[in-house]
Amino acid sequence: MISKINHIAIIVKNIEEALIPYQRALGLDSTEIELVEEFNVRVVFIPVGDTQIELVEPLEENQPLNEFLKKTGGGLHHIALEVGEIEGAIKELEKEGINMDDRVPRPGAHNTKVAFANEKEFNGVIMELVQPSK
Amino acid sequence: MISKINHIAIIVKNIEEALIPYQRALGLDSTEIELVEEFNVRVVFIPVGDTQIELVEPLEENQPLNEFLKKTGGGLHHIALEVGEIEGAIKELEKEGINMDDRVPRPGAHNTKVAFANEKEFNGVIMELVQPSK
Repeated sequence: MISKINHIAIIVKNIEEALIPYQRALGLDSTEIELVEEFNVRVVFIPVGDTQIELVEPLEENQPLNEFLKKTGGGLHHIALEVGEIEGAIKELEKEGINMDDRVPRPGAHNTKVAFANEKEFNGVIMELVQPSK
Repeated sequence: MISKINHIAIIVKNIEEALIPYQRALGLDSTEIELVEEFNVRVVFIPVGDTQIELVEPLEENQPLNEFLKKTGGGLHHIALEVGEIEGAIKELEKEGINMDDRVPRPGAHNTKVAFANEKEFNGVIMELVQPSK
């Protein structure tokens, strides 16, 4: 069901500043910074091997991520697992007793479909399912 | 310098219980649970694509990770970046102004060599360098 980790998301206060050590010290490239209106965030992806680090800057309107930012100062937020067909994957997880915050997928960055499991299900780790655009 | 993400580490209270949703709901395999004496932890690796999720259960003697566990209840802890030659990578990062908690590598799981950057350097995210065993 799971083919790879699509991304690991990190919440940051300022995306341009947060990018600097990845680019200068680690020598990693990144995509263009983009606005994801559905979630009220600015995001940038840093490809590493077959996965990517996603830096996420919440805009003022994004209450849950701004709360996370205030509480923690920013940091690791969730893991996104890539699946071939998200509706089937959601059903599979629910059949195994996993409580999904999104029982129906919603639109993510880059025309993906995404769904979040309740963080209690993976011992406090937020797991996202992502179906890439076709 | 960085070839891929070697692992994403998650601190858990009980490794056997934490494994259940990964195995049953996500259908992922895992390695044998092992004791890493250098760090006073039990660990298990769950391969996903070209990387792996590492579940880490701190033993009583591990003060820093037990504090993290008490404070957070467990969760995402650090990202480990794989490098070919760790001494050179540490020098490279220090040259770019990155403050390393380990200026000299120490032994990790599976005969790897590891070194941690200070978490302030990556906006609150703990970055580890890992050189695989040869």
